[in-house]
Amino acid sequence: MCLFCDIVDGKIPSYKIYEDDYTYSFLDISNDANGHILVIPKKHFQNILDCDSIYLSHIMETIKLIGKHLTEKCGFSGINVLNASGKEAEQTVFHLHFHIIPRKANDNMKVFPTLSKNEKDIEEYHKILRISQ
Amino acid sequence: MCLFCDIVDGKIPSYKIYEDDYTYSFLDISNDANGHILVIPKKHFQNILDCDSIYLSHIMETIKLIGKHLTEKCGFSGINVLNASGKEAEQTVFHLHFHIIPRKANDNMKVFPTLSKNEKDIEEYHKILRISQ
Repeated sequence: MCLFCDIVDGKIPSYKIYEDDYTYSFLDISNDANGHILVIPKKHFQNILDCDSIYLSHIMETIKLIGKHLTEKCGFSGINVLNASGKEAEQTVFHLHFHIIPRKANDNMKVFPTLSKNEKDIEEYHKILRISQ
Repeated sequence: MCLFCDIVDGKIPSYKIYEDDYTYSFLDISNDANGHILVIPKKHFQNILDCDSIYLSHIMETIKLIGKHLTEKCGFSGINVLNASGKEAEQTVFHLHFHIIPRKANDNMKVFPTLSKNEKDIEEYHKILRISQ
């Protein structure tokens, strides 16, 4: 039982924006921003961390395609792209989804977070997080 | 003159996390969140809207690779992924970059925005924004 799998399968109706063999895109039912769109893989993955490369690649292509549509044909001038992967990252539906928030001048929205939560110096994070190559 | 091109070229130092043929990843110098990382293409693109597919695909692979590193080896349990494409979307450096914000339980961070800005009914957005196929 997965809400977004049911949307892909047409068992639950949605406001479809675009569809191809790998991805399905539809309006976020919350309608909490002008044209808030979700892009999801047709195959079930929880989030970015378990998603196949081929689906990730197609999702990015779809985000770009929709972004160009919004900015070239629908009067928007930019997009924000957001993803939450994991419950602790504020993910609430556990089928991978990217949010597209269309933006325009003077829309009085603040999508990008103001963060102020570091526990260590940047040098310490560098030692801990860098990937040996 | 591009700040992030200079970082890729080593003209400006950075706290490198990971590098491959297509992408370069480093700590955001603001250190405004625990392990705030930027993932960028080595080739210059402004944002998602003008980025080549091959680079978009490799960027997503790198985001997944770093996400798995953070969650499997560094004590985090999730990630947020954020992008701003366009000045009106709060983009400030015009070399494509994705933010990775590592998350863990009880980190008291709010990364996902609370939005409340719609001008039209969802049916109207559907009529305006859907892509004919």
